[in-house]
Amino acid sequence: MREHYHDELDSITDGLIEMANLVGSAIGRATTALLDADLQVAENVISGDAEIDDLQRDLEDRAIALLARQQPVATDLRIVVTSLRMSADLERSGDLAQHVAKLARLRYPEQAIPRDLRRTILEMGQLAQRLMAQTAEVLMTRDVDAALQMERDDDRMDELHRAIFQHLMDDRWHHGVETAVDATLIGRYYERFGDHAVAVARRVVFLVTGEQADDLLTEPPAIA
Amino acid sequence: MREHYHDELDSITDGLIEMANLVGSAIGRATTALLDADLQVAENVISGDAEIDDLQRDLEDRAIALLARQQPVATDLRIVVTSLRMSADLERSGDLAQHVAKLARLRYPEQAIPRDLRRTILEMGQLAQRLMAQTAEVLMTRDVDAALQMERDDDRMDELHRAIFQHLMDDRWHHGVETAVDATLIGRYYERFGDHAVAVARRVVFLVTGEQADDLLTEPPAIA
Repeated sequence: MREHYHDELDSITDGLIEMANLVGSAIGRATTALLDADLQVAENVISGDAEIDDLQRDLEDRAIALLARQQPVATDLRIVVTSLRMSADLERSGDLAQHVAKLARLRYPEQAIPRDLRRTILEMGQLAQRLMAQTAEVLMTRDVDAALQMERDDDRMDELHRAIFQHLMDDRWHHGVETAVDATLIGRYYERFGDHAVAVARRVVFLVTGEQADDLLTEPPAIA
Repeated sequence: MREHYHDELDSITDGLIEMANLVGSAIGRATTALLDADLQVAENVISGDAEIDDLQRDLEDRAIALLARQQPVATDLRIVVTSLRMSADLERSGDLAQHVAKLARLRYPEQAIPRDLRRTILEMGQLAQRLMAQTAEVLMTRDVDAALQMERDDDRMDELHRAIFQHLMDDRWHHGVETAVDATLIGRYYERFGDHAVAVARRVVFLVTGEQADDLLTEPPAIA
């Protein structure tokens, strides 16, 4: 019974890793679709989101079945409940990749992103994909240091997000309002994607250490 | 034991209703802060979000304690697990209200929203507040018809969201890129807020009927 139980717990973690891998691939391809104005790749990301949604539902059903059958307590219970939250973060990340692909499709055959923002968006896309790969890694290894490193990588995402706004507000911006609106939304999608990847890693940190990632990152307060 | 158990279940539902009420009030006040450029109200919404976050953590702890102590199965188990998902939706809605307030604060003492978009934003703000009030109601009454009505109200939110984009793309738009970016983000915050309110109501529908809201709304397919 116990052995079967741990198999079930492991299979839930495997499901989360599979979701993270699919979502990481989706954001990578969505970035390609966006920057190359590639309709085929965009359609592929858009239709592929259903698989991620199915995985989430399947994972949720299995988590509930495990709760009902095995009635875990303490740490194991927290792992199962947390896995439900993590699967919701991953499912939402998949939606965000789909949003990027939909914007590429909407502007096709035009480029949604003008030349002077392409480098920033490319870096955001690559960072998003890398963050999600790290999330998969952290889910697998439970490596707290790797999870905390992700917080720093996500700071770079926030910097890039701000760089987009600064560029849009620059007097030299001459691509008009439609392109500014597109860039605003795309920037927000990547930034939220990073947040969800980090949120999953934070939950792993909490499961492993019992402490919030924030508390592990900040220096202890000086004695007054 | 059973009686205590149902008290605990009820108290989780009460917690969700309390969260929905707080979040509904927050989005209403955030809209006021935005449209009246009222810094005091904005600050109030921004600092008030901590209370919503605390409620969510408290609710999550109580749900996990209930799972550990009472080990519910079948419908009761699904109610507890679903309440965790609902509390996450409500917490996120609180963040979105806070985002609206932060944008009001960022532009203070200027108005973030120009005159020609104020009516649309006001309607989105009122609709957001009403949707969240309906969510609280549906949590209390488990009224499936009221929950399904919310889907239609949310269609109006999507219409208003599209209206913002149309207005921004109009050649007569003369408020510049910064204001367009602000309006894009604000529109997205309200639209997502509505999605979360509806998501909570959908989860209630599923708990009550065992069917997805989508299936209850669409006509049965005609026989080919």
